[in-house]
Amino acid sequence: MTSNDLGARSIALHKKLRGKIRVVAKSRLRTNDDLALLYTPGVGTTSAAIAKHPKLVADYTAKSNTVAVISDGSAVLGLGNVGPAAAIPVMEGKALLFSELAGLNAWPIVLDTQDTDEIVATIKHIAPVFGGINLEDIAAPKCFEIERRLKDELDIPIVHDDQHATAIVVLAGLVNALKVVGKDKAAKVVIIGAGAAGNGTAKLLVADGFSNVLVLDSRGILSRRRQDLDQYKQEIAAITNPENIDGDLDLALRGTDVVIGLSQAGLIQAHHIREMNQRAIVFAMANPVPEIMPDVAKAAGAYVIATGRSDFANQINNVLVFPGLFAGLLAHDIRRVSDSVKLAAAYELAGLVARPTRGRIIPSVFDRRVVPTIAAAIAHIDK
Amino acid sequence: MTSNDLGARSIALHKKLRGKIRVVAKSRLRTNDDLALLYTPGVGTTSAAIAKHPKLVADYTAKSNTVAVISDGSAVLGLGNVGPAAAIPVMEGKALLFSELAGLNAWPIVLDTQDTDEIVATIKHIAPVFGGINLEDIAAPKCFEIERRLKDELDIPIVHDDQHATAIVVLAGLVNALKVVGKDKAAKVVIIGAGAAGNGTAKLLVADGFSNVLVLDSRGILSRRRQDLDQYKQEIAAITNPENIDGDLDLALRGTDVVIGLSQAGLIQAHHIREMNQRAIVFAMANPVPEIMPDVAKAAGAYVIATGRSDFANQINNVLVFPGLFAGLLAHDIRRVSDSVKLAAAYELAGLVARPTRGRIIPSVFDRRVVPTIAAAIAHIDK
Repeated sequence: MTSNDLGARSIALHKKLRGKIRVVAKSRLRTNDDLALLYTPGVGTTSAAIAKHPKLVADYTAKSNTVAVISDGSAVLGLGNVGPAAAIPVMEGKALLFSELAGLNAWPIVLDTQDTDEIVATIKHIAPVFGGINLEDIAAPKCFEIERRLKDELDIPIVHDDQHATAIVVLAGLVNALKVVGKDKAAKVVIIGAGAAGNGTAKLLVADGFSNVLVLDSRGILSRRRQDLDQYKQEIAAITNPENIDGDLDLALRGTDVVIGLSQAGLIQAHHIREMNQRAIVFAMANPVPEIMPDVAKAAGAYVIATGRSDFANQINNVLVFPGLFAGLLAHDIRRVSDSVKLAAAYELAGLVARPTRGRIIPSVFDRRVVPTIAAAIAHIDK
Repeated sequence: MTSNDLGARSIALHKKLRGKIRVVAKSRLRTNDDLALLYTPGVGTTSAAIAKHPKLVADYTAKSNTVAVISDGSAVLGLGNVGPAAAIPVMEGKALLFSELAGLNAWPIVLDTQDTDEIVATIKHIAPVFGGINLEDIAAPKCFEIERRLKDELDIPIVHDDQHATAIVVLAGLVNALKVVGKDKAAKVVIIGAGAAGNGTAKLLVADGFSNVLVLDSRGILSRRRQDLDQYKQEIAAITNPENIDGDLDLALRGTDVVIGLSQAGLIQAHHIREMNQRAIVFAMANPVPEIMPDVAKAAGAYVIATGRSDFANQINNVLVFPGLFAGLLAHDIRRVSDSVKLAAAYELAGLVARPTRGRIIPSVFDRRVVPTIAAAIAHIDK
């Protein structure tokens, strides 16, 4: 099947469905008694009880099992800044995955503004009905400020999926890939891309003790000498690049053990792979077209290869993380997605593959253990 | 059953359900192919198509069959300003009714702000994923400005339910009640309450040709002499009260054919009914406790009596209107809820009772003809 076929079939399915999700009643409305209990006048008693004891909202409404999936459409998949309407199919898809994989309610919200202050204000104003906020496909660097401000101002968990769910699933895959090749956290890791995913992944790897990480943006290696870095890239430069080197992708990949592509199609070439260390690990995560195709990477000598795609082995996709992560956050009333939470999720996810091989470093999206394992992993983390 | 029993049962049901609505997938996720079509990479083609042709959002997403039910919690049922969290059970109930009665998606949004500018900005910013906005339980007079500004600035239908759905169902009931008593639009009609419901109802009755309407707020009859009226009450004073009289409720009800209570429990006394004209029509709509109990009104001589409650005859409740109204607006891409739309809905709803009697002037909420009849009624209105 070519990707054109897939696209045409996807459009046909979307046209048939006219919306991939549906809102349904959990209790049927058949009699006047149903109406009196579910709506007026009975509902008045429930509302009055919440007005008196605000914490009851968790017991009497859908808030505690409902996530908002919110985007401004500024960085949608590989499409870029396509705006809110074009982002809806992606957000509906995410809501569908929350429902199908974790049994959570998720509702898509797309914003007609791309202004940071307006985004923060809007999300704050609509937050009371939601138990958690999944920020999605918001461009860097504003995604960092939006997430930080919302974390400061709201008392529900806020997760920018592109940063944190990506970081967790990449770390899980990397832990198992390193087992396969017999290397450890001293391995040299190069991350291509310093956007949301690159930022989140670099921070989590460093928090886990990886001691030799380089991160590159489109101008080269992030170093403490670079004068053109915004505050978020400066933060990354401060905790990575131990020898404070400067250079381009060619230089960075020479003698490297691991490359993690979080950038765009085609950036990694066969010659890059050939200059990496033996038993090289190559994660080419750009979607839908990876930084290097798996067959090309393999022919050039890569030993463990992963992509974000379901049609190749080793699909490292954040679908493996966000349903279980929010299931755990909501079930255990965890309001901060700390490094401890992320590391616990990553290691438990990795642990689901008992004996990693080069062809299998990560569980399948359809492995029913994934969601409960991640949800349980974070239950005992200090809040 | 006492109302305390009902309240306790309602709370028990809410606690058991933990949310009256659920978001579910319309297409199951079982295979990698499902994932590729519903989510990445296939969804990218759908998003790209919408980015290129924005109108496709109506065909490829849930937008065209989805309503936002939005409140700031400032005027919830008879409870008053209880805030957003306590409003959630009511908004979820409304979403449930949209689903059960009209098969529409509706999602509850409660706002943590009660500032008019912030409410307008927030609703504008989250509008792209919704096909229509049902404003709910927002206090007068700010509800009028919020609705007007949103109508000016958004290209989807905006309905403040408390004004317009109430007006439609009251007019439908009144049309049939007048048939029962053999009176016409020259009847003297007194509306108690000049908030959202009183405002909407007065305007619609006048638009329909009722020529002798008085509206009262807590200080008495709205007249052109009153100096204490805000612009919205001034608008009502300008189109009602043909003789421009002043006075209190006692004066207003003397010699009246119809009284419509849209105010609060107990405001209408037996002596008021006794001073009304023969074959008096009494709509006592306050919820949960009406302005006068039906047995008291009947004993005092009222001929046709209606309330908002399901446990008495003649339940005049806007549940009869909003599901069919939005079904029609969305199906026929109608963006303005004009007087013509409202009048068509009211008369078709009234017409469902072929031979009105004093005990039956309005169809049941469970009459399956109601939603399609109202939806069809507005199909051919000039947009």
